[in-house]
Amino acid sequence: MNPNSESAELGPALQSLVARAERALQDCLPPAVHSADHLRRAMHYAVMGGGKRLRPMLVYAAAHVLGEDGPALDTAACAVELIHAYSLVHDDLPAMDDDAMRRGRPTCHVVFGEAMAILAGDALQALAFELLADADADAIDARVRIAMLQTLGRACGADGMAGGQALDLAAVGRPLELAELEYMHGCKTGALIRASVRLGALVGGADDDALRALDHYASAVGLAFQVRDDILDVEGESAVIGKTAGKDAAAAKPTFPSIIGLDASRERLVGLTDTALAVIAPWGERAALLHELARYAAQRTR
Amino acid sequence: MNPNSESAELGPALQSLVARAERALQDCLPPAVHSADHLRRAMHYAVMGGGKRLRPMLVYAAAHVLGEDGPALDTAACAVELIHAYSLVHDDLPAMDDDAMRRGRPTCHVVFGEAMAILAGDALQALAFELLADADADAIDARVRIAMLQTLGRACGADGMAGGQALDLAAVGRPLELAELEYMHGCKTGALIRASVRLGALVGGADDDALRALDHYASAVGLAFQVRDDILDVEGESAVIGKTAGKDAAAAKPTFPSIIGLDASRERLVGLTDTALAVIAPWGERAALLHELARYAAQRTR
Repeated sequence: MNPNSESAELGPALQSLVARAERALQDCLPPAVHSADHLRRAMHYAVMGGGKRLRPMLVYAAAHVLGEDGPALDTAACAVELIHAYSLVHDDLPAMDDDAMRRGRPTCHVVFGEAMAILAGDALQALAFELLADADADAIDARVRIAMLQTLGRACGADGMAGGQALDLAAVGRPLELAELEYMHGCKTGALIRASVRLGALVGGADDDALRALDHYASAVGLAFQVRDDILDVEGESAVIGKTAGKDAAAAKPTFPSIIGLDASRERLVGLTDTALAVIAPWGERAALLHELARYAAQRTR
Repeated sequence: MNPNSESAELGPALQSLVARAERALQDCLPPAVHSADHLRRAMHYAVMGGGKRLRPMLVYAAAHVLGEDGPALDTAACAVELIHAYSLVHDDLPAMDDDAMRRGRPTCHVVFGEAMAILAGDALQALAFELLADADADAIDARVRIAMLQTLGRACGADGMAGGQALDLAAVGRPLELAELEYMHGCKTGALIRASVRLGALVGGADDDALRALDHYASAVGLAFQVRDDILDVEGESAVIGKTAGKDAAAAKPTFPSIIGLDASRERLVGLTDTALAVIAPWGERAALLHELARYAAQRTR
């Protein structure tokens, strides 16, 4: 699979956001000075190996609703994608999900070794916060910047991504209620997806009502993305989705299809998408990018 | 060894700073709601298991020079200690230094498993940034807060702690020049020690001259701390230092004694301490805590 073909399902507007995110990510990473600089090379490898760039797209699209398009969005887009990339590197480790392939390539620890993969993840997390705190790089108001940093911190920690991953590990091989599964995903992937939308909204100067509506949208889209992921793991082919299909079932991981069945999972997906679209409907054309992203999350084939 | 006896070499003023840091750390950690909450329990275990609290002491002592003693210092002290605690958890992992004992207790991954130790470290790093970004918790000016977040981000990343650890891994079994060793330590432990002093100084409203002087002090003390560590690894007994003595030599890790010999290492330690004390001498009595910390870094027996 060619990782660069991952945006094939996106329309031209979203494709240009992916391209914008790719450029911003390339610029924000510290250059590897020489070939023996394994840490920086591992960081590049983890970040620049394709990927959907869903979270950066959400940053840009949320800000678009509010008429914001400035360079501060690139900072926010990079920050959330660096966090996402670090989480994948750590999740793939032998002690965690033990994945050897990701996006059609060997995972970071397979190429650079476990120690370097742990450190690359650690350094990517630090870089995400450093970028948001870099007051010289863009013109974000100090108070907004602090709100963004706090949003990202919460999304990454024990009540967010790391906490969700811990719940996920504890759930392997144990029957899970639907509510537990949704709570776990709400932390593991939902928190960072909500943070992505919120960062874009904060840069765009959203008021409390807009923040609430966008958070509602993000919660629905985040969960839809995960339901679709579980459905793809049942239906998809490894070559298309870029990782090992049927892996969840083999690992006895609780999924939406395993708990409520495939048909009910598809219905849930439709319901979540309807919710997301209804929330942003009042914005009309200004929410076109968010609209397309909600459809993409639910319909993607990889 | 009783971890709580680690402050035995400190005078009463520094001992009270350690107690203040212990309280602040206890308060900043998310409570473990039930016994199955392995992530939060692992975070507590990693942070509350004794430790010298050198970095929090440096935060308080640097601010003391500038007459600052407010609650914002507790936030900064917790942030640097959470980062330090997370780095130890990850450093101790089998894929890294593979240490089973730390501060006289089994290491985090021995108690909670590797996956949970990785996640606990990740969540502690996120919590450190979240604390600094929590504008409701204390009264730090927004611009100062951002400078603090940027300082911490830089200290943790590829040009700081994570980068230094990568250099350290690459150096095992390879002859190292003295300058390389000092550069590695300047990143691996020096960056966070300098950040600790700088955070205290920023809260205290230090001007550029004061920041420069305090950074000079911190560089010298940070390196002295490491030279002393290497000397203790040769001289110390495992029961006293709380970890396995002679481990560096056994692992073929480059150290100051292995490169320049034990006598020259002791001389270097005296020179670094003299430098640190000379830099802060103009502050007289206001720098008494920094003075004691410089002596402690060089003379500690554990």
